[in-house]
Amino acid sequence: MNNTRILKVELGARSYPIRIGKGIAAGEAAFPEAQGRQLRVVTDSNVAPIHLDPLLAALHLGREQVFVLQAGETRKTWDSAGEVLDWLLASKLSRDGCLIALGGGVVGDLAGFCAAIYQRGIDFIQVPTTLLAQVDSSVGGKTGVNHARGKNLIGAFHQPLAVIADTNSLATLPKRELLSGLAEVIKYGMLADSLLFEWLENNLDRILALEPNALAEIIERCCAIKARIVGLDERETGGGPRALLNLGHTFGHAIETHTGYTQWLHGEAIATGLCLAAELSARHGWITDTVVARCVALIARAGLPTRPPAGMLPADFRNLMGLDKKVQNGKLRLILLRGLGDAILTSDFDAELLAETLSQACA
Amino acid sequence: MNNTRILKVELGARSYPIRIGKGIAAGEAAFPEAQGRQLRVVTDSNVAPIHLDPLLAALHLGREQVFVLQAGETRKTWDSAGEVLDWLLASKLSRDGCLIALGGGVVGDLAGFCAAIYQRGIDFIQVPTTLLAQVDSSVGGKTGVNHARGKNLIGAFHQPLAVIADTNSLATLPKRELLSGLAEVIKYGMLADSLLFEWLENNLDRILALEPNALAEIIERCCAIKARIVGLDERETGGGPRALLNLGHTFGHAIETHTGYTQWLHGEAIATGLCLAAELSARHGWITDTVVARCVALIARAGLPTRPPAGMLPADFRNLMGLDKKVQNGKLRLILLRGLGDAILTSDFDAELLAETLSQACA
Repeated sequence: MNNTRILKVELGARSYPIRIGKGIAAGEAAFPEAQGRQLRVVTDSNVAPIHLDPLLAALHLGREQVFVLQAGETRKTWDSAGEVLDWLLASKLSRDGCLIALGGGVVGDLAGFCAAIYQRGIDFIQVPTTLLAQVDSSVGGKTGVNHARGKNLIGAFHQPLAVIADTNSLATLPKRELLSGLAEVIKYGMLADSLLFEWLENNLDRILALEPNALAEIIERCCAIKARIVGLDERETGGGPRALLNLGHTFGHAIETHTGYTQWLHGEAIATGLCLAAELSARHGWITDTVVARCVALIARAGLPTRPPAGMLPADFRNLMGLDKKVQNGKLRLILLRGLGDAILTSDFDAELLAETLSQACA
Repeated sequence: MNNTRILKVELGARSYPIRIGKGIAAGEAAFPEAQGRQLRVVTDSNVAPIHLDPLLAALHLGREQVFVLQAGETRKTWDSAGEVLDWLLASKLSRDGCLIALGGGVVGDLAGFCAAIYQRGIDFIQVPTTLLAQVDSSVGGKTGVNHARGKNLIGAFHQPLAVIADTNSLATLPKRELLSGLAEVIKYGMLADSLLFEWLENNLDRILALEPNALAEIIERCCAIKARIVGLDERETGGGPRALLNLGHTFGHAIETHTGYTQWLHGEAIATGLCLAAELSARHGWITDTVVARCVALIARAGLPTRPPAGMLPADFRNLMGLDKKVQNGKLRLILLRGLGDAILTSDFDAELLAETLSQACA
C-alpha cells in the first residue's frame, strides 16, 4: 500500500477510509474490511470485461459471486434493484455479508441502495471506476435509483465500509466519461475551493493527458472537500452545508430528466447547470462577469457543454425543477455563488432574473 | 388527551412517543407532530371503511391524500412498495412531508419502508389498528416487505415520529386477528416478564371480552418492554438484546413461508413457534416441563395453534430456517428460554434435540 493516499470520512461509528492509488484495486491490501467475509460483487457490462478479473483474483472470488448489470443510467431503476435483491437472496448472502460495488455512479448508487435494504442493511464497499464516482458519488452514503419523475427519487443514506479509488481505471475510461467527471471536479472548485479552481485552470492539460499524479491530486482534493462537508451534515438536513454539493444540480437534473437520462451524461448536465448557476448569481450582482467567464471558459476547455440541449425551453426547466427535492414548502431553493469557492443555498433569488437566465440560455 | 397513556422510546435524536388511549386516533390532539405538515395516508381495504374517515376529519385531509392497498400479507411486496412510491411521487409529496400508516402490521411495515426510501427518507407516523401492530410491529422502526424466499428480507430501520394506538380499533378487529396479536403479548411475557405472563394467565378472559382497561394494560406493558429493548439495541446488532424479541419467530417464519403467507396469520405461526422454542428449551433441561405446559396451555386457551400445519415436515423447517436472518456464518442461532421471562440467543443447542422437537411437533 505504498503510494496509497488515505483520507477519512469522519462520521463517528460510521467513519470510513477512502484509499486512492495506482493499481490498488488489483491487490488484497486495499481491502482489509473484506477479509474473512462472505462477499458478493455487483458490476456492469462495461466494467466487467476490464476490471472484474483483477478484483476477483485479489479477493479470491469466482464469477458465481458476481452480478453483472447491463450498463447505463437507464438501468438505475426500481426494477433493476429488485433483480439484484432477488439474486442476492438466491445466492444466500447472509446479513453479515458484504457487497462490493465495482463500477461508476450507477453501479455504486444501485448496489449501495440494495445493500441499504437487503435484510434491513448490510455492509458494502465502493470500488469506483469512473472519475465521477471517485470524486463524488462513491463518497457520502447517498444511494438510490431513478424514477420516471426524476433522478434519485428513491433511495437511502447508507455509508460504505470503505472506498477504493484506483487511478488506473481512469486510463480505460471513455474520454466522454472522464470529462463528465471533470464537471464535478470543477464544481468542487466553484463551490468550496478557489485555489482548486485555479489549480485546474493551470493544470487542465495534465489532467486531460491522464497524468497519474494530476489525477490522484484532484481525486484527493475533491474527496477531502466532500468528506469534510459530509462529516458536517451526513443526511443533508434542511439548510445544512451538504446541499451545497448540489451546485448546478437542480438545473442539471432538469436536463437529465428532460432528455430521459439517455443523451446527456450526468456530468455534462451538471456542467451546463454550473454555468446557469454562475450566470444567475452574476445577474444578482453576487459575483462578477469575470468569474462567470472563468467558469464558462474552464468548462468549455474541458470539452463540456455550457448550454442546455437544443429544443429545451425555459418552461421545461420550470416544470422539471418543481418536483426537485430542493423544493421546501413550495418555495424553490437554489445553490448559487456569492463568490468563487463560496456557494450558498437560498430561496432569496429573483424569479425574474431566473426567467432571464433561462431565456438567454435556451435562446 | 385525558386518559392517554404515554410511553417514550429513547433513541437520542430519534426518540418518539407512543400514545395509547380510547378514541385518540379520531382527534387532532394525538397528532401534534402532524400539525402544519404536508401529509399522506397509506391504509388498506379492510381498515379504510372503518377507521379512515375519523382520521381524515381529525387531520383535515381528503380522500385524494390517501392510498388504499388491497388488504393482506400477500400484498406486502416489492411491487406494492413500488406502487406506493409511484403514487407518492405523483401526489408530489415533498421531502419534508409526512406519511401516516393507518392499519395493521402489513400497512405499517410497507408504508414505513416507503417512508424510509422516499427521497432517501421522510417522516412517518404509525397508527396501528390491530393488537399485533400496537404491541409489536409499529414500535421499533423495523420496516420492510416480504420476498418469495422469506419474510421481511428487504427493508430498512426507520423510526416513526410517533405511534398512536387507539384501543377502540380493537373492538372492530376480527376475532382471529385479535388472537393473533395475543400471541405476541404472550411472547413478551415468556421472553422478558414472568409477571406479565402470570397477569395474562389470570386476566385472559378480560382480554377476550375486550375490556378496555385490560387492553390498554397489555398494550402499555408490551410497548414498555419493546421500548426498553429497542432503546438498548436499535438495529439488532449481532448478539444484542433486540434479537430476543424474535422468540418463536425462526420457527414461525418457516411456517409462514411454507404456507405462502396466506393460510396462517403471523401471530398464529408465532404461537406455534413459541411452543416449539419452549419445548426445545425443556429438552435441554433449561426450563421445566411445567413451564412448557403453562406456555402451551395459555396459548391454547387464547385459541391459538400449538402445532405446525398438517403436512409440514421437519425437513421443511430445516430448509426454510436455513435462510433465516439468524444464520451467522453458517451457524443457526435460536432464541430459547433459560426460564420463564428469561430468553437467550444461542447457537449452543443440540441439533439432535432440535430434530426430536420438530419430529414430535410434526408427528
